[in-house]
Amino acid sequence: MAGSRTGIWLIGAKGGVATTTIVGLLALKKGLTETVGLVSELKQFQDLDLAQWNDIVIGGHDIRDVTLLDEAYKMVFESRAIDGRLVEKLKDDLTALDANIHDGTLHNAGKKITEFAHAKLQALKETPREAVDRLKGHITQFAKANKLDNVVVVNISSTEPSVDGAQFPKTWKELEPQLASSDCKLPASSLYGIMALELGYPFINFTPSLGTAIDALDDLAKTNSTCHMGHDGKTGETLLKSTLAPMFANRNFKVMSWVGHNIFGNMDAKVLDDPENKKTKAVSKDRLLSKIFGYTPQTLVTIENIDSMGDWKTAWDHIHFQGFLGTPMVMQFIWQGADSLLAAPLVIDLARFADLARRQGCTGLQTQLSCFFKSPLGTEENDFAKQFQMLEAWTDSLKK
Amino acid sequence: MAGSRTGIWLIGAKGGVATTTIVGLLALKKGLTETVGLVSELKQFQDLDLAQWNDIVIGGHDIRDVTLLDEAYKMVFESRAIDGRLVEKLKDDLTALDANIHDGTLHNAGKKITEFAHAKLQALKETPREAVDRLKGHITQFAKANKLDNVVVVNISSTEPSVDGAQFPKTWKELEPQLASSDCKLPASSLYGIMALELGYPFINFTPSLGTAIDALDDLAKTNSTCHMGHDGKTGETLLKSTLAPMFANRNFKVMSWVGHNIFGNMDAKVLDDPENKKTKAVSKDRLLSKIFGYTPQTLVTIENIDSMGDWKTAWDHIHFQGFLGTPMVMQFIWQGADSLLAAPLVIDLARFADLARRQGCTGLQTQLSCFFKSPLGTEENDFAKQFQMLEAWTDSLKK
Amino acid sequence: MAGSRTGIWLIGAKGGVATTTIVGLLALKKGLTETVGLVSELKQFQDLDLAQWNDIVIGGHDIRDVTLLDEAYKMVFESRAIDGRLVEKLKDDLTALDANIHDGTLHNAGKKITEFAHAKLQALKETPREAVDRLKGHITQFAKANKLDNVVVVNISSTEPSVDGAQFPKTWKELEPQLASSDCKLPASSLYGIMALELGYPFINFTPSLGTAIDALDDLAKTNSTCHMGHDGKTGETLLKSTLAPMFANRNFKVMSWVGHNIFGNMDAKVLDDPENKKTKAVSKDRLLSKIFGYTPQTLVTIENIDSMGDWKTAWDHIHFQGFLGTPMVMQFIWQGADSLLAAPLVIDLARFADLARRQGCTGLQTQLSCFFKSPLGTEENDFAKQFQMLEAWTDSLKK
Amino acid sequence: MAGSRTGIWLIGAKGGVATTTIVGLLALKKGLTETVGLVSELKQFQDLDLAQWNDIVIGGHDIRDVTLLDEAYKMVFESRAIDGRLVEKLKDDLTALDANIHDGTLHNAGKKITEFAHAKLQALKETPREAVDRLKGHITQFAKANKLDNVVVVNISSTEPSVDGAQFPKTWKELEPQLASSDCKLPASSLYGIMALELGYPFINFTPSLGTAIDALDDLAKTNSTCHMGHDGKTGETLLKSTLAPMFANRNFKVMSWVGHNIFGNMDAKVLDDPENKKTKAVSKDRLLSKIFGYTPQTLVTIENIDSMGDWKTAWDHIHFQGFLGTPMVMQFIWQGADSLLAAPLVIDLARFADLARRQGCTGLQTQLSCFFKSPLGTEENDFAKQFQMLEAWTDSLKK
Repeated sequence: MAGSRTGIWLIGAKGGVATTTIVGLLALKKGLTETVGLVSELKQFQDLDLAQWNDIVIGGHDIRDVTLLDEAYKMVFESRAIDGRLVEKLKDDLTALDANIHDGTLHNAGKKITEFAHAKLQALKETPREAVDRLKGHITQFAKANKLDNVVVVNISSTEPSVDGAQFPKTWKELEPQLASSDCKLPASSLYGIMALELGYPFINFTPSLGTAIDALDDLAKTNSTCHMGHDGKTGETLLKSTLAPMFANRNFKVMSWVGHNIFGNMDAKVLDDPENKKTKAVSKDRLLSKIFGYTPQTLVTIENIDSMGDWKTAWDHIHFQGFLGTPMVMQFIWQGADSLLAAPLVIDLARFADLARRQGCTGLQTQLSCFFKSPLGTEENDFAKQFQMLEAWTDSLKK
Repeated sequence: MAGSRTGIWLIGAKGGVATTTIVGLLALKKGLTETVGLVSELKQFQDLDLAQWNDIVIGGHDIRDVTLLDEAYKMVFESRAIDGRLVEKLKDDLTALDANIHDGTLHNAGKKITEFAHAKLQALKETPREAVDRLKGHITQFAKANKLDNVVVVNISSTEPSVDGAQFPKTWKELEPQLASSDCKLPASSLYGIMALELGYPFINFTPSLGTAIDALDDLAKTNSTCHMGHDGKTGETLLKSTLAPMFANRNFKVMSWVGHNIFGNMDAKVLDDPENKKTKAVSKDRLLSKIFGYTPQTLVTIENIDSMGDWKTAWDHIHFQGFLGTPMVMQFIWQGADSLLAAPLVIDLARFADLARRQGCTGLQTQLSCFFKSPLGTEENDFAKQFQMLEAWTDSLKK
Repeated sequence: MAGSRTGIWLIGAKGGVATTTIVGLLALKKGLTETVGLVSELKQFQDLDLAQWNDIVIGGHDIRDVTLLDEAYKMVFESRAIDGRLVEKLKDDLTALDANIHDGTLHNAGKKITEFAHAKLQALKETPREAVDRLKGHITQFAKANKLDNVVVVNISSTEPSVDGAQFPKTWKELEPQLASSDCKLPASSLYGIMALELGYPFINFTPSLGTAIDALDDLAKTNSTCHMGHDGKTGETLLKSTLAPMFANRNFKVMSWVGHNIFGNMDAKVLDDPENKKTKAVSKDRLLSKIFGYTPQTLVTIENIDSMGDWKTAWDHIHFQGFLGTPMVMQFIWQGADSLLAAPLVIDLARFADLARRQGCTGLQTQLSCFFKSPLGTEENDFAKQFQMLEAWTDSLKK
Repeated sequence: MAGSRTGIWLIGAKGGVATTTIVGLLALKKGLTETVGLVSELKQFQDLDLAQWNDIVIGGHDIRDVTLLDEAYKMVFESRAIDGRLVEKLKDDLTALDANIHDGTLHNAGKKITEFAHAKLQALKETPREAVDRLKGHITQFAKANKLDNVVVVNISSTEPSVDGAQFPKTWKELEPQLASSDCKLPASSLYGIMALELGYPFINFTPSLGTAIDALDDLAKTNSTCHMGHDGKTGETLLKSTLAPMFANRNFKVMSWVGHNIFGNMDAKVLDDPENKKTKAVSKDRLLSKIFGYTPQTLVTIENIDSMGDWKTAWDHIHFQGFLGTPMVMQFIWQGADSLLAAPLVIDLARFADLARRQGCTGLQTQLSCFFKSPLGTEENDFAKQFQMLEAWTDSLKK
C-alpha cells in the first residue's frame, strides 16, 4: 500500500496534550520510543492501511504565545511525566514546528480561556465567518506546502463554557448565515469544526466542548462527504467507569452510590477551575452510569485544580453496592495517570482511524470510534468492552 | 412451563458459602429478600426454563459436627455480613435442614481439612469405592424422598492440597479400578465428582481443588450423558482482574507488574493458611493475566488469614503499567466484599444453569459458564466481558 | 472516694451520637460492653475521681418527635454500626429514657435544622430569654428529681449556619439584655450554653456551631464559677490530620497540598448538605494544617451527603509532599469509621472530665481538653500528641 | 563558632541511599537544592554547632565495581526519583568522589550480598582482624588527607542475614581475640563498627544488620570515649506506624490486626528477596506495635521485590480496630515514597548529630536519636512524637 500523506491539525497545539502528541510523533518517526499506549498499533489493527509515522505532518492552532520546547520542558521538569532525554534529542524539531502553529480564534471561548490568550489575539475583531476563513487559510496552505492528501483536525483545546446545542437550526443552510454576525452563539470549537468540514476534512472533538455535536454540522459533514466524531476523550476515571460498571451490572450487584474525586494541576485543571467550564466536564464524566445500569445510583463527581499535581491526574472512586441479601460492600480505586500521556496516543489513534475512514468514504458520525470517548455521539453504547468490539468489527470489515 | 424439581447438593454444606446459600434460598422461597447478586435473575435470562425457588430442595455433605443455625449466627454476629432479622425468621427451617446434611469423605482431603472433621469421621476406614458408594446412597435417598428430577452437586468445600492431575489415566475405564485401593491418589473432591457423574447428575467445582478436571472424569460425564464444569468461583479480586486486564490490553498499556494482597479470616482462610492448600489457590488466582496480555508481567499474589476480618475479604491490588513514551503509571484498587455473600448467589446461578444444561442434553464441560470461574476448564477465554457474552449467546440459542 | 451524682444533658438527644452515647452508657451500667474507645478508661486515668457509670443520669433536649428506640434500630439495621443484640437487651431502658428528653429551641438554628423539627416546636413563639428560662426549667427539675451534684451539658446537635462571633459585646453584662429581643443574633447553641452557665453547670460544645465561643459567655462562665470548652469533636479525618501533620513537620517534609474528601449519609450529613451549614464545618476541619506547618499548603476539604453510607463516614486524604532534593511523594489514607460510634465515647469522656474539672474548681475554658476538639478554644496547640500530653499533665497534677 | 572539619564515611557507598546522600551533600554545598527533608535544618536546631556543608567530606566502603555517576543516573532514569538537571551539574564531582571509595569486607555478609561483590573482593582471604585493620587504614588516610577532626561512620549497606547477638561475650576484652579467627561469627556490619570505634569515631547503623548492637561493642565505644547508635533507619511505613499507633492507643481503640505490605525494586529489595535477609528486616518493622499498645494485635508484614518499582517503595497498611461497643472499623494508608530520598537526609542528619554528640563528649548509645530508627537501641520508647521530643530536649540542653 502506498503511503497516504496525512496532516494532523491540532486545536490547542501548544497545550500539554498537543505537546505530548508532537513529542510522541517525532519520537516515533525517529524510532526513539516504543508504541506502548497506541491502540492503532495493536496486533489486530496491523494490516490496515493506516498512515505511517513518516507520512504524517503536524500543524495547528493555539491562542498562547509560548514555544513547544518550553511546554515540553514543563512536562519533563514540572510534571516529571516525560523522560528528559527524549526532549533533548527532539529540541530542534520542536523549535522548527512552532512555525506550523497559527493563531486560533477566541470567539465565545469564554472568559477563562480568553485570559490565557496573547494580547494581539485578544484585540482581534472579526466575525465568525471571517475567523473561519482565516483559519481555513492556514490549513489550506499547510496541506499544499506539505503535499497532503488529507488533514484530520483534532480539538484538544481547553474546555469551553457550556452551550445549549438545541438553540441552533437543524440544517447547515439555516445555520451558515449566522456566521456573518458577531452575535453568533457558536463557540470557538464549532468554528474549528466548520473550518475542517467546509474543507472536506475530518473533525475529531477530544473535548467536552460543543464542536460539531449539532445536527447542522453533521449535515455539513455529510454534504461535504467527510466525517466527524466526539466527544471528550476517555482517558482515565471514565475509562474505568465504562469498564467496571458493566461488571457490576452483569453480576446483578445493585450500585447504591458511585463517588469520584479527581485532582490535577495542569492548564486544563486551571481552566476547569472556572465553574462555567467545570460544569461542561462533570456532566460528561457522569452520565454513562445510568445508561449502563438502567437505573440511577447516587453519584458525585468533582474535578479540582491542585497545583502541585501538574499533569498527574489522581482519581479516587468509591463504589458502594449491595450484594446478595442486601449486604453492602465497597470497591475503591485510585488512578494515578499523567493526563497528557494518556490522551496523546489516543489523539494519534483517532487521527489515523479518522483518516482511514475518510479514505474509505465514511461520512457523518463515526460511531465505531466510540471506545475513545466519554460521551460518544450517535450511539448509546457506553460499555467499553462492547465499544472496543465495534472498532474491531469495523476494521475487520475493511480487511475483507 | 411446568416446574422441574431440582436438588442442590452442597459439598461443604455447613461452611460459610453453603450457609449463606441456604439462608438465601430459604429467604427467596419466602420472598424475604430481593434477587440482588443473582446473575440468573438478570433481565436477559428471564424467559429461560430455570428451576424456580419453590422447586429447589437442598442437601449436602460436610465433615464437621456443627449446626447450620450456629454457622448462620456466625455470619451475623462475628462477620456482621448477614442481617440478623433474616436468620431469626429462618431459624426453624435452618434447624430442619441439618437433617439433610450427611457425613462426607476425608480421603486425601489433606491434613488441615482432616483436623476440622469430627472424630467419628476421622476414624472411618473405607476404600474410595466404598466412600463413593456411601455418598451416592445419601443422594439417591434425597432425590427419592423429594421426588427430584435432577440433583446438581456443587463443591464449595475448603481447598485441598495440590494434586497433579497428569498422573491419572485418560479414560474412566482405566481410572475406575484404582478406586478399589486406599492408595488411590484421587482427592475427596474427585470422589464427590465421581459420585455425581456416576448418578448422571451435573457436578460443579466452585473450588480450586482437582474435582473432575481430568480427562477420565470428563469421559465419565459424557458416558453418563451428564455435564460438569469448574473451577474456582470468580468472586472478587480475580473477577476484577478479568474485567480490568482486557482494558489494559485494549489500550496497549504495558503492564509491568500486578501485585495482589488478600486478607480474610473465615474457615476458608484458616485452611488456606496451610502452605500446601494455599499453593493450589494462588496459582488459580494468577494465571489469567498472561493469557489476557499475551506476555507475562511480574505478578505477586498473597492470601493470608487475618482472624479479625471474618468473612470480609479485602484485596489490595497495585497495577504498575507503562503508558505512552514509557511513562510509568499506577492503578490501585481495594475490594471489600463478604466472601460468602459473593459466592452464594453464584452457587445458585450455577446450579440453575447446570440443571438447565443437563435438561437440554448438554454433556461434558459447560464452557458457556466460564464467566463464573477463575480458571474455566475447556476454554482459554479469560476476559470477563467475553465470557459473559458466551453465556448470553448460549441462553439466546435456547430461546429460539 | 464517694460517688458524685452526675447528670449528662445532651443537646440533640435523639440524634445518632446521642443515641449511641445513651446505648453505650446503659450498656456500661449493665456491664454489657467493654470500655473500648473511652479515653477516660485508659490506665493513666484510673485513679481519678471520675463519675462512675451508676452515678450518671441522662437527659436532654431535642427538636424532633422520634423515639430513642427507633433511632437505635436505625444504627443497627440501616447503618449496621451497632450490634442488634445490645439494643434488644436495652429496649425498655431506652423507651423509659424518652421521658427525660424535652423540647429544645430553634432560635436561629437555621432553615435546614428547623425543617427537621416537629410542628408544635416550629410554631412556638418566645424570646431568647424566655427560651433559656424554659430550658433551664427542664434541667433544674432533672437535677432535683435525680439528686444530682452536677450536670454537664454537651451540645451534639446538628451544625448551625455560620455566625460571626465578633458582632457580640465582650461582657455578659452587655450581652444579657439582647436576649430580651427576638432579633437577638445568638444561635440556639449559644442559648443552650447560657442555659448551662447561668445554672453554674459546665458546657461542652462538640459541634462547630458558635456555642459559648465568645468572650461574653466566657465571662459568664467565670462569673458563675463554672467551666466550658469547645469546639467540634475530633473524631476521624481531623484526628488523623492532627496526628500525621506533626510528623510531616518534624521530618521537614514540605507539604504542597492536602486534599480530603469525606462522604457519609446520616442526619448530620443531611444538615451539612445545606451550603450554609457546610461552610461552618469545612473551616473547622482545615485550619489546623497551617498552624502545625507554619506555612499554608494548598488544601481542599469536601463533606458530602451520600445516603447509602448511613453513619459510616469514609474519608480519602491525598497528601502531596516534597522530600529531599524536591522529589514529590504521596501519602494517602482511607478512614472508614462509624461516625456516631467515634463521637459517643468522647462525649462521655468530656462529660466526666468536665464534671471533674468543675468539682476541682476549674473555671473558664478547659484547654487541657483540647485533644478532643478539631478547633480547641483558648489554645493554639493542634498537635494531637502534645494535646494529649496536656490532658495527662493536668490529671497528673490532680493526683498529687 | 569555628567550623569543625567532619568526614562522613558511608558503608555501602555506591548504593542508592549513599548515591543520593552524596548527590544531596554536593548540591547543598553548591546551593543547588533546598533543605527539605533535613531534620537538622529545622528551626529548632538552628543554633546548634552542627557541621556546615562545606566542612563535610565524604568517603566510604563498597563491595561493587560501579561508578557513582552511573548509580546517580539510575536514580534519574530508571527510578525517576532525582531531577536529571542536578546530576548533570554534579557530574565531575561525582566522578572525582569514586576515588574516596574503597573495598569493604564480605566477612559473613551472606550469600546474596557476596554475589553482588566484584570478583577480586570475593577472592580476598583475610581474618576479621586483618579486614578491620585494612579498613581502618582507609579512614585514617582519609582523615589525614582531609584534615578532619572527626569521621562519622554510617552503615547503609544491604541487610545481612540474621545473626544471634546473644552468642557473643559481653566485654570487648573477651570478644576482641575472636577476630583473629576466620570462624569468627561477627558479620561485616560489626567489623565496620569495630573499625569506627577502635579509631574513636562514632558509628551509626542505619540497617537492621547486627552492627554494634551487642554489649561488647558498647563496651568498646565507651572505652574509646566515642558513641554509636542504631538500628534500622525509620523512613516510611514504620515511621507511620510509630506516628499512628500512639493515636490508636490514646483513643483506647483496640487494634485487632495490622497488616502491612511493602513493594519496591531497588538493590535493597533484591537483597531482601533472599529469605535469610528478609527475616532480619521483617522483625524490625513489626515489633514496635506490641510495645506501643501493651498487647499484641495480629500482625503481618511483607516486603517484596517488584522490579518495576525501582526506588519507589509503596506500602499498603490495613488497620482493623474496634471502636466503642466493639464496632469494627478500618483505616488504610498507602505510602508512595522514593526510598533513597527518604533515607539520605536522615543519614546526613544522623552524621551531624552524632558528630555533635561526640564533640560534646557523649559516649555509648545515643538514645536521643531514637526518632531516626525503627528499633532504637537502649530505649523502649517507640512513639515517634515522644522520640522527637527526646531529640529536642537534648539539643535544648546543649544550648544552655
